[in-house]
Amino acid sequence: MERDRGNQYTVRTDLAFEAKEMYVQEKAKTKEIKGVLSKEVDIDGIKVSHIEITKEGERRIQKKAGTYITIFTDSVIEQDTNRQAKVIKVLAEKIRELLKLNGVKEKSKGLIVGLGNWNVTPDALGPLVVDKILVTNHLFELHYETVSEGYRPVASLTPGVMGVTGMETSDIILSVIDRFQPDFVIVIDALASRSIERINETIQLTDTGIHPGSGVGNRRKEVSKETLGVPVIAIGVPTVVDAVTIASDAFDYLLKHLGREWQEKDAPRKSLLPEAMPITHKDLSEKDLPSQKGRETFLGLFGNLSDEEKRTLLREVLTPLGKNLIVTPKEVDQFMKDMAHVLASGINEALHESVREGNSGYYTR
Amino acid sequence: MERDRGNQYTVRTDLAFEAKEMYVQEKAKTKEIKGVLSKEVDIDGIKVSHIEITKEGERRIQKKAGTYITIFTDSVIEQDTNRQAKVIKVLAEKIRELLKLNGVKEKSKGLIVGLGNWNVTPDALGPLVVDKILVTNHLFELHYETVSEGYRPVASLTPGVMGVTGMETSDIILSVIDRFQPDFVIVIDALASRSIERINETIQLTDTGIHPGSGVGNRRKEVSKETLGVPVIAIGVPTVVDAVTIASDAFDYLLKHLGREWQEKDAPRKSLLPEAMPITHKDLSEKDLPSQKGRETFLGLFGNLSDEEKRTLLREVLTPLGKNLIVTPKEVDQFMKDMAHVLASGINEALHESVREGNSGYYTR
Amino acid sequence: MERDRGNQYTVRTDLAFEAKEMYVQEKAKTKEIKGVLSKEVDIDGIKVSHIEITKEGERRIQKKAGTYITIFTDSVIEQDTNRQAKVIKVLAEKIRELLKLNGVKEKSKGLIVGLGNWNVTPDALGPLVVDKILVTNHLFELHYETVSEGYRPVASLTPGVMGVTGMETSDIILSVIDRFQPDFVIVIDALASRSIERINETIQLTDTGIHPGSGVGNRRKEVSKETLGVPVIAIGVPTVVDAVTIASDAFDYLLKHLGREWQEKDAPRKSLLPEAMPITHKDLSEKDLPSQKGRETFLGLFGNLSDEEKRTLLREVLTPLGKNLIVTPKEVDQFMKDMAHVLASGINEALHESVREGNSGYYTR
Amino acid sequence: MERDRGNQYTVRTDLAFEAKEMYVQEKAKTKEIKGVLSKEVDIDGIKVSHIEITKEGERRIQKKAGTYITIFTDSVIEQDTNRQAKVIKVLAEKIRELLKLNGVKEKSKGLIVGLGNWNVTPDALGPLVVDKILVTNHLFELHYETVSEGYRPVASLTPGVMGVTGMETSDIILSVIDRFQPDFVIVIDALASRSIERINETIQLTDTGIHPGSGVGNRRKEVSKETLGVPVIAIGVPTVVDAVTIASDAFDYLLKHLGREWQEKDAPRKSLLPEAMPITHKDLSEKDLPSQKGRETFLGLFGNLSDEEKRTLLREVLTPLGKNLIVTPKEVDQFMKDMAHVLASGINEALHESVREGNSGYYTR
Repeated sequence: MERDRGNQYTVRTDLAFEAKEMYVQEKAKTKEIKGVLSKEVDIDGIKVSHIEITKEGERRIQKKAGTYITIFTDSVIEQDTNRQAKVIKVLAEKIRELLKLNGVKEKSKGLIVGLGNWNVTPDALGPLVVDKILVTNHLFELHYETVSEGYRPVASLTPGVMGVTGMETSDIILSVIDRFQPDFVIVIDALASRSIERINETIQLTDTGIHPGSGVGNRRKEVSKETLGVPVIAIGVPTVVDAVTIASDAFDYLLKHLGREWQEKDAPRKSLLPEAMPITHKDLSEKDLPSQKGRETFLGLFGNLSDEEKRTLLREVLTPLGKNLIVTPKEVDQFMKDMAHVLASGINEALHESVREGNSGYYTR
Repeated sequence: MERDRGNQYTVRTDLAFEAKEMYVQEKAKTKEIKGVLSKEVDIDGIKVSHIEITKEGERRIQKKAGTYITIFTDSVIEQDTNRQAKVIKVLAEKIRELLKLNGVKEKSKGLIVGLGNWNVTPDALGPLVVDKILVTNHLFELHYETVSEGYRPVASLTPGVMGVTGMETSDIILSVIDRFQPDFVIVIDALASRSIERINETIQLTDTGIHPGSGVGNRRKEVSKETLGVPVIAIGVPTVVDAVTIASDAFDYLLKHLGREWQEKDAPRKSLLPEAMPITHKDLSEKDLPSQKGRETFLGLFGNLSDEEKRTLLREVLTPLGKNLIVTPKEVDQFMKDMAHVLASGINEALHESVREGNSGYYTR
Repeated sequence: MERDRGNQYTVRTDLAFEAKEMYVQEKAKTKEIKGVLSKEVDIDGIKVSHIEITKEGERRIQKKAGTYITIFTDSVIEQDTNRQAKVIKVLAEKIRELLKLNGVKEKSKGLIVGLGNWNVTPDALGPLVVDKILVTNHLFELHYETVSEGYRPVASLTPGVMGVTGMETSDIILSVIDRFQPDFVIVIDALASRSIERINETIQLTDTGIHPGSGVGNRRKEVSKETLGVPVIAIGVPTVVDAVTIASDAFDYLLKHLGREWQEKDAPRKSLLPEAMPITHKDLSEKDLPSQKGRETFLGLFGNLSDEEKRTLLREVLTPLGKNLIVTPKEVDQFMKDMAHVLASGINEALHESVREGNSGYYTR
Repeated sequence: MERDRGNQYTVRTDLAFEAKEMYVQEKAKTKEIKGVLSKEVDIDGIKVSHIEITKEGERRIQKKAGTYITIFTDSVIEQDTNRQAKVIKVLAEKIRELLKLNGVKEKSKGLIVGLGNWNVTPDALGPLVVDKILVTNHLFELHYETVSEGYRPVASLTPGVMGVTGMETSDIILSVIDRFQPDFVIVIDALASRSIERINETIQLTDTGIHPGSGVGNRRKEVSKETLGVPVIAIGVPTVVDAVTIASDAFDYLLKHLGREWQEKDAPRKSLLPEAMPITHKDLSEKDLPSQKGRETFLGLFGNLSDEEKRTLLREVLTPLGKNLIVTPKEVDQFMKDMAHVLASGINEALHESVREGNSGYYTR
């Protein structure tokens, strides 16, 4: 999440899951898209979505061909360490799956890259994860005989961001990779989210690579299998959201809420004002959305815009005023700490058999 | 800013400036309120608002009688250290004004209290300020002869928050004050804002005291001249905002934007969709708001709700869903650091003549 | 560990274990002291020393009557998390023992006080521990019904140090205790060590209380059962050492090394210079000390001074030069983090049955 | 200061100043060494030593040929910000001198490299400095027109340490330099000191380059003009010291103290024990050292060893016992913060004319 400091900020849809959802939504709820295979599974109470995008799918939904896996968990925002432990297991398994799918061998050499700015907490996820990565490469190089069974050579890099280093982040990564010659690369980054529901609640894995600092133009270079010649697994977690998204989500919830009320009361409210004892809805879904007539009654012309149109309009208004703030939850410090623990533990378990088996004294505290 | 962790969070209007604005707005733009004297001055390019609320005013606008001074500055979010230096001067002057107004003598003993949670960056403003306060009381007590001219005895306290200490914050403050017997108290706290425009852009001073952790019921006790028997100056800076406010502000901007366009084009747009080359407005004001008819066209029933009604409705919808996030700008770390520097420097200059005259080696880095 | 900044620093013997050792040593190795009962046990590979000092013992060895328990562990400096887990169990057991010995009931209310300066890493142990303490008192007070079985009310306080607050630390503690009325108090502090062997390697518990900031005169007041009226358990870990101690220890090792060599070679070395293949001793003990003649040959007049005389002389020389540095191991950040984890976990297990039984989601990360 | 974790630690003489002193000392106080030109100047109250080592000097004192400049200042340990400001001016001037001497042009492109481990405070000096470096290269690359006069392109890198990255630090630096192609490099590192007098009290500059992680064998590669093809200025500050050095320094002070007393009393003391009113010496110098006879009387065989022999012997004894601790002053956090401020400000002033002239809003806080 490397961004310019200006206000010309555009929240990119970093999550494949979101890209698909947007597309599906616009295609009038057709759940089948050619070239996009998706399934959803439940592992030990944790929802995991798999999306496979072929070259044909890439053309259709404007998202690079490859595998996208999304793990849904509110264990971090709920500070539930028991469930976080389960997420670590699932994450480790999915990383191994992706590595295997990309032909990475059991003992091959890995480089873990933590993107982001360590001085900006919601952007420090990458560096925080790398801090807890079990690094072993130097042990293999210097004293091969002392490294126990069950480990592989792993190195790590925190390249910083361009505003801090003055250099293209991808240039730093590419030059180090050039010399280090890893067999595969794992890149961790904090993302901008397209929904307030997903902040710190989803972990996305993909083998399609990453553009460090994307979202601010095409100036930065890609870090991917195509540019590096070795598999690149990108792990991303949305940690920030912009005001446009918050407002747009709020209005979506509002419409659904009013739609549900209408259904339940068998008549529209005469006024939108809450009654003495308001009906509060703890869950709202797409089917609660009111009809076009209802949307117009409630929200006028605005109510009938599509999601994308609403966002575009809001962005058009807020950005020149300097009011499209990029924000993060107030509890960002604890969330980043716990999420970094989850990601680093998952990576360590995925890469080292000995960590996986739990017979190791290594620990990320 | 001590808050429960749950979602039942209500953003209190901590800023007197906002309370007045709300009242004025609802009273159909009558700028005169009986019992509320206000003036606005410009000091070296910095806007400063003074509001004096009498007992009569207190009854009218539901804000405690006393003096409220608000300093408006975007020097922190713009990271402009030259202008921050000017704000420090203005802040020091205003603190001295308030102390004098409350009968605090030049050499009397002060206690600086930094409210908030040092583990939650946007709530750590109080502790961060206290960290940079020039503390001298022990020097006066232990080696009176070594303290140079131009200083007064100052002590500091960071009582923490109830979720961390397990005790009422006001109880900790009251018991320490009881023993330390200061002549006056300055309390610093991070606030929740009612507008995205004010986050890290306003510094409010008041002599009316503070309720640590207010906003979560009436359980906490007041820290004020009434409870302590000595003057209490509270300094607050809004550092967080909730999703309801962001959405509500966004819709306010949207209405004004559409209103302005209507005026400029002499006709309503047929569609809200931005044209190829949209008119972007860099400043919008109350007079850009469209008529009732216009508001209804653009935003339906919602468009005709008052500000407070919009907020209430949005809160009613978002809170039970757990989506009324409390958020802070992504750059929170730098903002808190710079704002703490501004506040601490202002307090140090206000309290110690020698710091004011710049002939001191003391420094807040 | 609250200290003046000057050079007039005297390392107090904070550890009872050391006080006894010093006494024994000077009393010509007599291991029995009247009024001082001591035993040493091994629990799961961890050495634990118990010393009971009666009123008579107090007069003899100038250490307050009461119980002193010392846990010896190098698990922190070795970063061995498996053995740290064992130390946590032993520590929890010993805290429970001391609480029981002092008549503290299972459900009574506790206050955990973390002494020290959070801005000075080797002095931040107290605040770091408090950060990880499971605080429950407010839950009991506000929503008694929601607190599960197996917990007791616990609150925490980090009073800071006088150089930062400008107030006597003991005054802050006493005033808060006065209002909060706990049934018992646990105080954590970083100590100065009298031996380089003990830094971060011993945990001492005592029921005799503590003088915050002792070592700089008699100005500070005691925090103990006598002053508070409730039991006070103090937990201390040596984290710093002064240059005098390092030099004095080095010369002690040197003498033992030379004495051992003499024994082994059946003749004194003609020169102290290391040979081509020096004998390196991995363990040296009291019996390796050379005779008086040998000590004089090796180290002249200095060699025949007693330990205390050596220290006094070195202190006399180094202090006025400003060279009696107080130092801490280079790895202080990691050591403090791990030691804080060990102490906080031990306290949490000791105080809450549910944590002890491991069926809790609470966690100190 | 990249070090192995083991005990086989050897304190390298990182400071040219120390290398010369050692040599001079052993050469029986001959102050002239062929091939080593030295002068000492006083700039605004700050002592600065210049040493020029030719190829011949290199052979004699085993220190690489080149220029070594040492700035002596106790302004950081005394926390005297006024004098720190003077040191910044001197440092900036000396950096400019060294750059000019090495043919670096006014507008040429620089890379600032902060060596060391950001998780180990006394080793974090390099990263802390880089954090405050005014980085401009990306502005030149992306928006050349917006960069004001008086700046040059500067980038920065914090490569980490091998124990954290798993890669050779010099490999990371070399690969980034290869791609970035700077015209000159400035490398900052924390050093191990050979004297307790110099910790955080000297700043050494040299144009001879640096071996990241030297002191642990010859495995690491040099970062110098020879390997990079562009000038390399290394800036080092001693931040740690080992127990051998502390003990050896303590004994040196002890001997001088006893020698001085002897002179003053016109007779040796019969006993080393301090009298009721000991003479305390606030300054001791080489001429206070007692004669050989005196040294033997006071310290036996040990007293007659040379400095290097004493160190070797102490190291022989302490290292196998695991007691040759590497330590840092207790106040390490504040010292690192202030020293980083001094170094970064000096570098910023040296590299950018606009910063030098003070007409810049840039600031290292």
